[in-house]
Amino acid sequence: MQIEKYKIDEANNQQAAAHQRKFDFVAEGVANLDEVMGKLAEFNIAIPSWALGTGGTRFGRFSGGGEPRSLEEKIEDIGVLHALNRSSGAISLHIPWDIPKDAKAIKALAAQHGLRFDAMNSNTFQDQANQPLSYKFGSLQHVDKNVRKQAVEHNIEVIKQGIELGSNALTVWLADGSSFPGQLNFRKAFENTYESLQEIYAAMPDDWKMYLEYKCYEPNFYSTTVADWGQSLLYVNKLGPKAYTLVDLGHHLPNANIEQIVSLLLMEGKLAGFHFNDSKYGDDDLTVGSINPYQLFLIFNELVEGMDARGMNHANDLGWMIDASHNVKDPIEDLLQSVEAIKIAYAQALLVDKKKLVQAQLNNDAALAQEVLQQAYRTDVRPLVAESRLRAGGALDPIGAFRDMQVRSNLIKERGEKTVATGL
Amino acid sequence: MQIEKYKIDEANNQQAAAHQRKFDFVAEGVANLDEVMGKLAEFNIAIPSWALGTGGTRFGRFSGGGEPRSLEEKIEDIGVLHALNRSSGAISLHIPWDIPKDAKAIKALAAQHGLRFDAMNSNTFQDQANQPLSYKFGSLQHVDKNVRKQAVEHNIEVIKQGIELGSNALTVWLADGSSFPGQLNFRKAFENTYESLQEIYAAMPDDWKMYLEYKCYEPNFYSTTVADWGQSLLYVNKLGPKAYTLVDLGHHLPNANIEQIVSLLLMEGKLAGFHFNDSKYGDDDLTVGSINPYQLFLIFNELVEGMDARGMNHANDLGWMIDASHNVKDPIEDLLQSVEAIKIAYAQALLVDKKKLVQAQLNNDAALAQEVLQQAYRTDVRPLVAESRLRAGGALDPIGAFRDMQVRSNLIKERGEKTVATGL
Amino acid sequence: MQIEKYKIDEANNQQAAAHQRKFDFVAEGVANLDEVMGKLAEFNIAIPSWALGTGGTRFGRFSGGGEPRSLEEKIEDIGVLHALNRSSGAISLHIPWDIPKDAKAIKALAAQHGLRFDAMNSNTFQDQANQPLSYKFGSLQHVDKNVRKQAVEHNIEVIKQGIELGSNALTVWLADGSSFPGQLNFRKAFENTYESLQEIYAAMPDDWKMYLEYKCYEPNFYSTTVADWGQSLLYVNKLGPKAYTLVDLGHHLPNANIEQIVSLLLMEGKLAGFHFNDSKYGDDDLTVGSINPYQLFLIFNELVEGMDARGMNHANDLGWMIDASHNVKDPIEDLLQSVEAIKIAYAQALLVDKKKLVQAQLNNDAALAQEVLQQAYRTDVRPLVAESRLRAGGALDPIGAFRDMQVRSNLIKERGEKTVATGL
Amino acid sequence: MQIEKYKIDEANNQQAAAHQRKFDFVAEGVANLDEVMGKLAEFNIAIPSWALGTGGTRFGRFSGGGEPRSLEEKIEDIGVLHALNRSSGAISLHIPWDIPKDAKAIKALAAQHGLRFDAMNSNTFQDQANQPLSYKFGSLQHVDKNVRKQAVEHNIEVIKQGIELGSNALTVWLADGSSFPGQLNFRKAFENTYESLQEIYAAMPDDWKMYLEYKCYEPNFYSTTVADWGQSLLYVNKLGPKAYTLVDLGHHLPNANIEQIVSLLLMEGKLAGFHFNDSKYGDDDLTVGSINPYQLFLIFNELVEGMDARGMNHANDLGWMIDASHNVKDPIEDLLQSVEAIKIAYAQALLVDKKKLVQAQLNNDAALAQEVLQQAYRTDVRPLVAESRLRAGGALDPIGAFRDMQVRSNLIKERGEKTVATGL
Repeated sequence: MQIEKYKIDEANNQQAAAHQRKFDFVAEGVANLDEVMGKLAEFNIAIPSWALGTGGTRFGRFSGGGEPRSLEEKIEDIGVLHALNRSSGAISLHIPWDIPKDAKAIKALAAQHGLRFDAMNSNTFQDQANQPLSYKFGSLQHVDKNVRKQAVEHNIEVIKQGIELGSNALTVWLADGSSFPGQLNFRKAFENTYESLQEIYAAMPDDWKMYLEYKCYEPNFYSTTVADWGQSLLYVNKLGPKAYTLVDLGHHLPNANIEQIVSLLLMEGKLAGFHFNDSKYGDDDLTVGSINPYQLFLIFNELVEGMDARGMNHANDLGWMIDASHNVKDPIEDLLQSVEAIKIAYAQALLVDKKKLVQAQLNNDAALAQEVLQQAYRTDVRPLVAESRLRAGGALDPIGAFRDMQVRSNLIKERGEKTVATGL
Repeated sequence: MQIEKYKIDEANNQQAAAHQRKFDFVAEGVANLDEVMGKLAEFNIAIPSWALGTGGTRFGRFSGGGEPRSLEEKIEDIGVLHALNRSSGAISLHIPWDIPKDAKAIKALAAQHGLRFDAMNSNTFQDQANQPLSYKFGSLQHVDKNVRKQAVEHNIEVIKQGIELGSNALTVWLADGSSFPGQLNFRKAFENTYESLQEIYAAMPDDWKMYLEYKCYEPNFYSTTVADWGQSLLYVNKLGPKAYTLVDLGHHLPNANIEQIVSLLLMEGKLAGFHFNDSKYGDDDLTVGSINPYQLFLIFNELVEGMDARGMNHANDLGWMIDASHNVKDPIEDLLQSVEAIKIAYAQALLVDKKKLVQAQLNNDAALAQEVLQQAYRTDVRPLVAESRLRAGGALDPIGAFRDMQVRSNLIKERGEKTVATGL
Repeated sequence: MQIEKYKIDEANNQQAAAHQRKFDFVAEGVANLDEVMGKLAEFNIAIPSWALGTGGTRFGRFSGGGEPRSLEEKIEDIGVLHALNRSSGAISLHIPWDIPKDAKAIKALAAQHGLRFDAMNSNTFQDQANQPLSYKFGSLQHVDKNVRKQAVEHNIEVIKQGIELGSNALTVWLADGSSFPGQLNFRKAFENTYESLQEIYAAMPDDWKMYLEYKCYEPNFYSTTVADWGQSLLYVNKLGPKAYTLVDLGHHLPNANIEQIVSLLLMEGKLAGFHFNDSKYGDDDLTVGSINPYQLFLIFNELVEGMDARGMNHANDLGWMIDASHNVKDPIEDLLQSVEAIKIAYAQALLVDKKKLVQAQLNNDAALAQEVLQQAYRTDVRPLVAESRLRAGGALDPIGAFRDMQVRSNLIKERGEKTVATGL
Repeated sequence: MQIEKYKIDEANNQQAAAHQRKFDFVAEGVANLDEVMGKLAEFNIAIPSWALGTGGTRFGRFSGGGEPRSLEEKIEDIGVLHALNRSSGAISLHIPWDIPKDAKAIKALAAQHGLRFDAMNSNTFQDQANQPLSYKFGSLQHVDKNVRKQAVEHNIEVIKQGIELGSNALTVWLADGSSFPGQLNFRKAFENTYESLQEIYAAMPDDWKMYLEYKCYEPNFYSTTVADWGQSLLYVNKLGPKAYTLVDLGHHLPNANIEQIVSLLLMEGKLAGFHFNDSKYGDDDLTVGSINPYQLFLIFNELVEGMDARGMNHANDLGWMIDASHNVKDPIEDLLQSVEAIKIAYAQALLVDKKKLVQAQLNNDAALAQEVLQQAYRTDVRPLVAESRLRAGGALDPIGAFRDMQVRSNLIKERGEKTVATGL
């Protein structure tokens, strides 16, 4: 299944006049229009390979139809996404769910769809069939040196796979922790984990980055060994210049001020990038922007300000990835909504009148500072994002196009109603 | 201090062309424009009399200048607000902070400013000078019948004051509860409170309503005797048809789904109305819409749907009030921002394509349902709200006008730099 | 596998002297010793049939060995538990995980182990193979009348199964809700659910009870249709005298005061009983008493006080059940710890000096009230609980006995290393 | 008011026999009895000078009677505490609430009561009369260099006061932060704060320590500039070897695992010590051990293990202080309960069978690890703590003695019913 360009053009043509009117209206009010359009054009968000199938919870999983049955089909699905929104030009693989049998062929297939390979993800939170030792009680933290060794070797294997695919980053998310007081010694768990990470770090090529993710709880329910940004930062500062802290928006305790964490990690030069999603209660892994879009905007506001302050390239100096679980929506539609929400937040942040904001801050004028932020946030920037897509050859209305072209029913015809993609 | 109409007109004239362009643009996309403009015109949010001064926390209070020194000056301030936004045409008095010495004169003064008296607020969470018995351990829940009696009589006195002013509702917020396990018997506290409320209920005229507010914690830190919507509903159902549950947005445990509570209270015919504010952690009492404006929109979406389903009048069948604490902003500016945020959320909710939403719900199409809601939410409705203000004689840009007219420095000149209004 | 009584006796004999010394010491300080011992003797906690296997999370499941492969083996495991602690004399079945093929035979088998059948649990949160309609978007709340009908019929079938087994209660836990704003209409979801519950209610024999469980989130992450105690109470009050609200300790928002909820539900005559577990973050389903044992004591303190006030029988007038997920412990050991924690909390609550507590409350003497509660809580009541077990023929040290008798390795020998019990 | 030793002895004599029986019973089961008794004897918890008066909330303050009117009377009250429990031999002063007019005389007075001066507390969260610049928008973070300078100088002044009194630590708690998105630039606030802290750090004598406290929110409700342990650690690592992170138990987001934080700070050699209190919702400042005593035990379990691992002296190498707000209890009784709860938790932690725990951890035996911890926690160690007090000349039952000797009514006679101590 591949989306033919002329179909997108046809759809766009029908909406062209209405779009142009909206774009002209909003563009007139944007002083830095060229900058905004330029930055939107460059911006891509990686799609994780496991996100193309329907997710589930511990209570069950209700699969949809036409889910990709192989890595090739996953690439195809991301190709569909990217054809529609021109902002999903990267894949983030998860090993061992998606081990490429022939790296060259896979790389070529991805290239056909305009896709590159973003950060590789290792997995030591599940036992694989034929795995000699179990991760039931942790991996890099394990009290048994042999289990740690197995987990380290798995990570090194993932790096090797990534090198062949042209990736240059390894994302390490650890479920390691404990579910009961007394179950582990926090200090020793930290020390074991640190030692294991050092070995993985040593195996990374010089131009690679390690993204160390943190998470406050789940699947362990008493402690997690990389539980918050402070802990992750402790590790990556000890590890060295190639190690960075990855922020997953759903991995915080209730009410955490994530945007402040982002600002400080940027200040320290240790922000790796993001796993985007949204949540109301815990790590709910909902569609980005579906619960609290203003928070997303505030995060991007810190990103734009902080990256500019450090002279960073918005498009390439951080890792941008979605990490959501599409339990009740079509996974491709969910991803289209997520990418759209991210680009909207980014566009809004680019619209913030920085000069006026700085002035308000210097005057402790909280009311004016809020006016400045909300002036940007309340602006309907969707036409800017759509125009950016249009110029890049994508669809003005990606979900509309996806539905009109009946992509899902075509996928079901090809792949069957009862396919189940690997993943959670 | 009163704002002269011609100054508002002058300011509006300068912005007229720019506004017209924006209004025309957004209005073209609104199918039910007349309905929206009509409902916005009718909508008023009551201003509590204690909200005109700078608030504080237990750690201190940093007063601003020119705070109102009397009830008359508070009315004046609300008059300023209402002149600017034409949506603050009601006052909610707090007794004993604002006991009118001459009810008739106060009523006349309010009328001059176009203001009526909304719900009256009693106060049994502080001891007043010369009060015979203390509320240290509660009021309506107190183990001592005499303390309960004193608190009941205070509430009845507030009703009497309200009758003279033309109010027709009593808001009861109770700090009653306990700070330590064992300190009180929950059941007996409930029973005492219920008995006390019955006596107050009995003293209300037939056309009055009792608004029973709930709050999960603070100032008591272990239990609160009207702690959540379920408890408030239990009381008001027992009390009778004149008793309703009041929702203060900041009075919930972390992550509560407030919009669902609103929907169910409407379903039961027991929603009194709102104390609007915003918060990130607890009862932070921040400016409405400053932290999570999407949540506010979702609440209004339930209100519009639920009130329509019951044939209720959006403007009058519920009580709308702000309850915030303006610690670091000019109180009047904060209130202008709060009222604006409420009207924006209301306008967005009125824009929701209900037919399409119902259809999406019947198809379990969560992605489309989100598109429908966000289509309304992402629309920049500020020109609609501004137009509504303009038509009613208010300012296109209330905060801009407030600043340009130097209202605050005039108030400081009149009242002094070191005034402190009664309140928290 | 059945535990032979003489082995328990042997183990007890070795510990008899040490135990007696401890028991004598603590017993001397207990004024109401006979009452306490009598109530402990009567008290039984039902074991859910799914709790004998290792649980998991959405990230994976690490099975242990020797898990029961059939309902018969589950009954055997509960028999082991009950032989050791003499307080687990009831089973709570979960349909369709544990459909008895021959109800009479199963009943007889259970009786051999001294077990009766407690509340039956229906399951409409997962799709079963060959199920015509899916519960992906809810069951009793579903927009499609046919799905609701299927779910209602399933519940009625569970009641029938229960009647044959001698149960007299149906526990209804609904995953129904939504994961995104707009996905469902809260009011209609409530109305559909209520209508469905009415049909189930009508199918219950007169001596049955319906236990309606609430849960704030998971597996739905935006709204749940029976989300809190207030909602459950609304349903059960509408349904009638046979319907009650079930409290699962892990199903609340952060920081909720569960003991107050328990007290109020008792006051209203609508408390069904408990699903016991402990948690730090969400519905973590950890061993009872492993995270916050004082909270458990405070709940039992309300239970003892409230049940006495209503003249209720502690042992039989409420439903007592464990609902935990044993991810990293041997499930039988976990259940032994949970039952022990519950009995300890109960014993402590029975030790509270009620007269002194009431007096402290009447004097608003919060310090003394705390002293009274903590005097009971700080007392080491383990010898009382052990003595109660001893008198009933159980083991003084159940976990020690379980380990010394090598029960798990025997089960593995019988059943194999790689068995996986049905359940989460 | 000073407690005469013979009165304590009289009270003890009456309880001697009952106490001896309990002590003998529990002592028999404690293998390391001498170590436990020795460590309990050495352990002292500092009392903050503001804790002798009744606290309040933003909603009001209900003073008790006989509150100390001067620093001298505060010292007298702590003298009463220390005479009763022999574990409160230190004072923590708060400047400017308690500026000693004559340091030598104050030092001598304290020495009379057996008290030394623990960490000094600066205050830049309130404006003092005659203070040239306001802290409304922060102190060490302030955008205005002059405000920062004023705040730095205040801290340096506090250090000077401390030197004269024989203190050797400065506790810095900053309310600095923001209440609205946009109000401040997080990075610049961090940088300003860091620069200010450097100046204060430079003014500290070589044998002094800086304790940098963190707090997630309140009195600012959007961001705090030293918000969590990760941020505090970032500052103190940059500052140098004399700077440490102080843990206040109530300053965390909901559900935080505080004991893990404690363990990691110890590992890093950067734990300053504690502000003890307990809480259910936020920074509730309740009596230590009144809400979740098991958590307190788990923290002490980490302390004992971690300090032993680093060869630290339990009594002197960390700062131990109570920081609670006694709104509804007699402040002295509240402090007696708090100190008792801390010593109980400490004694329990000293009882943990470390060898067995380490073995369980090496076997991933979570059930056994829990048994080991709870074996210590469930032990009724109160007789050990009482014996320790008895040997040091304190009261077996401090609260009982305080009440029997009618200390509060004597204080009221001396000082009056309507005194209000300085503080929150």
